[in-house]
Amino acid sequence: MSPLIRTCVLVAGIVIFYIAYLLLGALVFSYIEGPVEETLRTDLTSLKQQFLNQSCINASQLDVFLERVLKANKYGVSVLRNGSGHSNWDLASSLFFANTLVTTVGYGHTTPLSDVGKAFSIIYALLGVPFTMMVLAACVHRLMHVLTYGPLKVLQDHAGLQPRLASTVHFGLLLILVVLSFFAVPALVFSTIEGNWSFLDGFYFCFISLCTIGLGDFVPAEQPRQEYRALYKIAVMVYLFVGLMVMFLVLRTFHRLADVHGLTAFFHLPSYDDLAEDREPIVEKAEKEDTRETTKPLDPSSQVSYNSFGR
Amino acid sequence: MSPLIRTCVLVAGIVIFYIAYLLLGALVFSYIEGPVEETLRTDLTSLKQQFLNQSCINASQLDVFLERVLKANKYGVSVLRNGSGHSNWDLASSLFFANTLVTTVGYGHTTPLSDVGKAFSIIYALLGVPFTMMVLAACVHRLMHVLTYGPLKVLQDHAGLQPRLASTVHFGLLLILVVLSFFAVPALVFSTIEGNWSFLDGFYFCFISLCTIGLGDFVPAEQPRQEYRALYKIAVMVYLFVGLMVMFLVLRTFHRLADVHGLTAFFHLPSYDDLAEDREPIVEKAEKEDTRETTKPLDPSSQVSYNSFGR
Repeated sequence: MSPLIRTCVLVAGIVIFYIAYLLLGALVFSYIEGPVEETLRTDLTSLKQQFLNQSCINASQLDVFLERVLKANKYGVSVLRNGSGHSNWDLASSLFFANTLVTTVGYGHTTPLSDVGKAFSIIYALLGVPFTMMVLAACVHRLMHVLTYGPLKVLQDHAGLQPRLASTVHFGLLLILVVLSFFAVPALVFSTIEGNWSFLDGFYFCFISLCTIGLGDFVPAEQPRQEYRALYKIAVMVYLFVGLMVMFLVLRTFHRLADVHGLTAFFHLPSYDDLAEDREPIVEKAEKEDTRETTKPLDPSSQVSYNSFGR
Repeated sequence: MSPLIRTCVLVAGIVIFYIAYLLLGALVFSYIEGPVEETLRTDLTSLKQQFLNQSCINASQLDVFLERVLKANKYGVSVLRNGSGHSNWDLASSLFFANTLVTTVGYGHTTPLSDVGKAFSIIYALLGVPFTMMVLAACVHRLMHVLTYGPLKVLQDHAGLQPRLASTVHFGLLLILVVLSFFAVPALVFSTIEGNWSFLDGFYFCFISLCTIGLGDFVPAEQPRQEYRALYKIAVMVYLFVGLMVMFLVLRTFHRLADVHGLTAFFHLPSYDDLAEDREPIVEKAEKEDTRETTKPLDPSSQVSYNSFGR
């Protein structure tokens, strides 16, 4: 098998396993949280009915009612008749929740109600977060060849640009492309689909999500009677995954740009060459080299992680 | 100035600048969002009063009322008389919000209401997230000497353990120490301070926070009439910062453990030695070496980023 095919098969395998992991998580969350949510929803509906049946309402009665309404809302269960209507733990929503856990975005628009759900979230994220970062890194490593090394070679060899100028021009073009494709256009799409989102709201959602901050004040596909809701949720998941990958890519390319311009050295930040220097205390050099000779690393993460921009 | 003093001064300078950045953010958020929140709070109070004054309430009136209550709640403004009472944009709360933005935790228990606030959040995080990762990485790099290399040297040189066994024992001890000090004990403290949190709730909060998922279903210092609220908020911020640092440290140590045991090679993941191999397309070797010789890197991030566990 040629190295190219082997690496493609390997990456495809990892991605398929990742999707299986998400599906497994979604099924478990749905199984654990679905019934709990259903009970809460029924309780809330009867509570509302009781409240409406009262002939006279005083402030403290209202407060008791509102306290329960707000508590249910915290778990994503709305008291409103025109609330989203769907369960927060159907397959699409559970998949979306599992995805926001493992990418560390964590909107928190729905959260596990039960203790079992909370415990499962911990275990699921404990395995899922590192695994997701590995999948993202493995994909980015391959994307770098197409979107960074390739164009740079063209700029240097064919357009005859100096390395410094070539990498600056390349980074500028990449940034414009990314801002347009992963912020501006999605913001426009969200502001069109989501009834009450402005363009700024859409842009803010994209930014807060792709930074993995995930405040959760704007979450797509949560409005009442959303058409093709499950499909829309999955599309947003794909957008988040590809978007995070592209953010990794931009940061990696930026690190290389900083290297070329001597910025990492100027700010006393390490370049890649420096990364190897402090491992001797643990690893014995000879032993290490032996290990390396026997295998050819896949290199899924020989890159700037998204959260290590500074280096 | 000796290298040790120089590096201490440098790290202290970075940390002070980081605190100043948080304070600046808090002041701006407080200035932008404070008045908007105040208006919303006043509106909500009069809305509630109007609602209570109605002699007869039907379902649609209740829904209109609840819709506005839930919307205000999304921005952290509670309709309840015994709601937290404090502003979400006083200095301590704004500081906490700024901190959750730049660490990418993003609980979302309070979120900017105004467009200016949203735009400022984007700009603030754009600069703040990379800067925070750099500060964390700079601190971790120094901690590694105290908590990883030092103890490993003792285990190898004084206890006479082989490198593999030494690093396994060390990692096991480190993990126990971290789980106890940064998960179990804080969980116990939170379950004591926060009236309605169980130990599992506390543990879940610690885990979800230190993974930067930040769902926001549990946020400390948000209960009504919290004593020493500002101080408590700041203590939680310090816990989050130190906790994230320790998570970086554990991951870095784990990466080294995986190297020693040949796991990175077995799973075709790169060791640190491999990190330098793919930069040539951008950087010309000779040029690079010149740059490096002139400065001694501070190395703030020659480590596994928290989010790049997989490598």
